[in-house]
Amino acid sequence: MTVLIVALAPWSLRLKERINSSCAVTLVRDDDAAAIDQALPSADIVISGRFDAAMARRATSLKLIICPWAGTENIDREQVPAGVTVVSSGGPEEAIAEYVLATLIAMRRSLFDADRRLRAGEWKYGFLADRVVDEVYGSALGMIGFGRIGHEVAKRAASFGVRCRAVTMHPKRAQPPPGVTIDIGALTDAAAIDSLVEWSDAIVVCCELSDTTRAMFDARRLALMKSTAILINVARAGVVVEQALFDALRAGRIGGAVLDVWYRYPSRRGQQQVPSNCDFAALDNVIMTPHYSGWTRPAVERRLERIVDAVESFASKNRG
Amino acid sequence: MTVLIVALAPWSLRLKERINSSCAVTLVRDDDAAAIDQALPSADIVISGRFDAAMARRATSLKLIICPWAGTENIDREQVPAGVTVVSSGGPEEAIAEYVLATLIAMRRSLFDADRRLRAGEWKYGFLADRVVDEVYGSALGMIGFGRIGHEVAKRAASFGVRCRAVTMHPKRAQPPPGVTIDIGALTDAAAIDSLVEWSDAIVVCCELSDTTRAMFDARRLALMKSTAILINVARAGVVVEQALFDALRAGRIGGAVLDVWYRYPSRRGQQQVPSNCDFAALDNVIMTPHYSGWTRPAVERRLERIVDAVESFASKNRG
Repeated sequence: MTVLIVALAPWSLRLKERINSSCAVTLVRDDDAAAIDQALPSADIVISGRFDAAMARRATSLKLIICPWAGTENIDREQVPAGVTVVSSGGPEEAIAEYVLATLIAMRRSLFDADRRLRAGEWKYGFLADRVVDEVYGSALGMIGFGRIGHEVAKRAASFGVRCRAVTMHPKRAQPPPGVTIDIGALTDAAAIDSLVEWSDAIVVCCELSDTTRAMFDARRLALMKSTAILINVARAGVVVEQALFDALRAGRIGGAVLDVWYRYPSRRGQQQVPSNCDFAALDNVIMTPHYSGWTRPAVERRLERIVDAVESFASKNRG
Repeated sequence: MTVLIVALAPWSLRLKERINSSCAVTLVRDDDAAAIDQALPSADIVISGRFDAAMARRATSLKLIICPWAGTENIDREQVPAGVTVVSSGGPEEAIAEYVLATLIAMRRSLFDADRRLRAGEWKYGFLADRVVDEVYGSALGMIGFGRIGHEVAKRAASFGVRCRAVTMHPKRAQPPPGVTIDIGALTDAAAIDSLVEWSDAIVVCCELSDTTRAMFDARRLALMKSTAILINVARAGVVVEQALFDALRAGRIGGAVLDVWYRYPSRRGQQQVPSNCDFAALDNVIMTPHYSGWTRPAVERRLERIVDAVESFASKNRG
């Protein structure tokens, strides 16, 4: 069994060491097109965050693509040869669900502002002030997408007394957590999406970026949100129209946003890069984080374990 | 039925209006000793955050004390006449549990720092950096106290895959949430506390302040904590020794602290007041908030409702 790892992450070397015992492994850099070209023809398994037409032409032995990311939008499904399976390794969903609940509660209770002011001796909220904050108990959470991440979010949200609704590409396959009731609609049904958006006190975007979801949160749909509702994006920035979101936040037409995914990324590690063409940093009704919601130390370990498991399981079946 | 409200909170007037229909209600200011003295002899029910010997001497008709706070340490139990029931209204426990989970996750993933740096274009954490953060999935949470707040924390923690242990004054009466297994020890058992402290990745202080709990987190006990463990105090500051906590945080001997309760409070609304004699504001491994963990708008409403319910239930029984 021959495995090609197209390296993107610092743990690629560790992954190679783990798989080496059972397979022949080649590790190449993501930007080394010549090395990828050379390694592809003999690869039974490709571990890569992207797969395109050029790769497909040379991948003549390919049987399995393992995408290490939750979002597989750079795996071009049209180009994946017949008979080749695509799986996403998973691993970050628990970490992302923690991020979603924590940031939603932090927004509701002005946590950053409360901390900053108390450090200066100002008691702005609570029984020593006239301002009260909000909570999530009993509130309504709409989920755009209901895969592994949505499942983990819903499980935690239920324990907070939060009611959930979801839209997903695969409503019939959706499995709510045990004991949790969720109204699940179709992500292809614009009226179902609009209804969910109007109903929600908070919306979590946790779907794939695709032709169906790209720019689905445009000015019209953002205008359907409650004026107090919070939009949390842990999927891909392209699902939400940059300027429309900025305008809605600046005008206070929605309650706030939690953004972990961005419109502009650094082109290399360590590079300074403001994450948008709009000045989100000037707003105080946003939480801004550097695409790290699923990137905890244990989540990286789980991802590694699950890729190794997927490779070994496939290898043992196909050696049969 | 005659009710005396010793006013502390802005909603006292609304509470009076709500009870007025069924009872004769007197509302007096907390600092108006003469008015309290005058109203006490005829009061069947006192709604007050404190009760002392002087009040007891005059409260000759008293049957019920309703404390609007979760912490009843200012109700002097020794002075409560025989046959008088003391209840805490409840209401804030759901809000406090939200605060505990959100701040714990925020600490684990350096949320404040991640936001501040990304606003300046710095991608410090995640797949574009070499730093990874942490999560709570699978971690160990020790609870000091297991009343209503502990119950709500445990329910939510379980959904995050967090394992819980607790010590409480009433281990036999403790009721874990359905489906949640919690090892529950006695708050009077120093060895049980030490064992819990050593075991925990995070510790939530959610007990009454009493002779048993005052200063229980001294330098010795803080030194038992893991170097990465986080201490969350939503009870009363007096449970944790101020200087010992500050020293442990400054030296990095513990992972961090989330502090909602304080050593110095403003003496009146709007007054600036640094919350401690130690300079916690100079530390970056703390989250500091102004005693607002249970003070959300819905929690204030729940508290009001539950006091009204307690008064009406008592009044209807005693009218026969």
